Amino acid sequence: MPHIDLDASQPGILGLLQFRPETGAALLNLANVLLRGPNTLSPGERELIAAFVSKQNHCSFCELSHGATAAAQLPAGQQAVSAALADPATAPITDKMKALLNIAAAVRDGGSSVTDGQVAAARDAGATDVEIHDAVLIAAAFCMYNRYVDGLGAQSPSDPAAYLGMGAHIAAHGYGR
Amino acid sequence: MPHIDLDASQPGILGLLQFRPETGAALLNLANVLLRGPNTLSPGERELIAAFVSKQNHCSFCELSHGATAAAQLPAGQQAVSAALADPATAPITDKMKALLNIAAAVRDGGSSVTDGQVAAARDAGATDVEIHDAVLIAAAFCMYNRYVDGLGAQSPSDPAAYLGMGAHIAAHGYGR
Repeated sequence: MPHIDLDASQPGILGLLQFRPETGAALLNLANVLLRGPNTLSPGERELIAAFVSKQNHCSFCELSHGATAAAQLPAGQQAVSAALADPATAPITDKMKALLNIAAAVRDGGSSVTDGQVAAARDAGATDVEIHDAVLIAAAFCMYNRYVDGLGAQSPSDPAAYLGMGAHIAAHGYGR
Repeated sequence: MPHIDLDASQPGILGLLQFRPETGAALLNLANVLLRGPNTLSPGERELIAAFVSKQNHCSFCELSHGATAAAQLPAGQQAVSAALADPATAPITDKMKALLNIAAAVRDGGSSVTDGQVAAARDAGATDVEIHDAVLIAAAFCMYNRYVDGLGAQSPSDPAAYLGMGAHIAAHGYGR
């Protein structure tokens, strides 16, 4: 049961965005800038960071919705997403993405957990300062979105198939309303 | 040392907002809506939630800057902020704020840590659904801002006196540029 009175027809964060449109607009704007704006990391790579952090935070709505969105945009599709969420080291993703996911895992644990060595490894794999910045901020932002969804007890479907349409829609249209 | 090349004259999040203006604008907009927008929780009460979560996350820049901003706006000033950050139960704040800070502490731990009992206690103390929503989202948002600042190794002054001017400025002008 949600902790506040939400529209039961709107799963996960959707009911929350509708409940409080003022904060909803600011949260959607941030998601669009972070995950869809001009960037040398592709939208699929950025969605993968979002899904990866969400899985580690045990937020199933965010893991499955952003995992589906990543799968709709990455060349290797769902296989790459499933493998990266299970173990980045052996997944069919670039060395740069492996290093950025290591940084994202540290951010999830706590900002001070990010080490000079992790940042150096990302840089050695070709990551720019802006890419390192964006990976940290995306990971941090999903520590917010995950807590927002679960902290208010928002309900969400447990069947991954329920997220395929959502992923395809976001891949095509982004987070605008 | 910061993990990326930041303007050393801009402490804490300020250097990060300047480094990446696209995300900076979205983050400032969110802070304005959350902490300064129309609300039955006063700006000082909302800044207190921000400072409280930041202290628990060991993010000194955010704790001291939002603590100074809360102190500039709460009737009981710095005394209330220091007492609430040390122990909400014995601080000179309302029972509603004590209950909302308990919820904020749970959100910081993880969204699923928020209990029905904590929400019921906040409601018994007079909190509305919107106030419970906003307390959860402010706490979640500072789990992002804190990780952003510390995850990129942004430098910050350790002397609380350095934040007094910042707190007074934000209290008067908000988070716009």
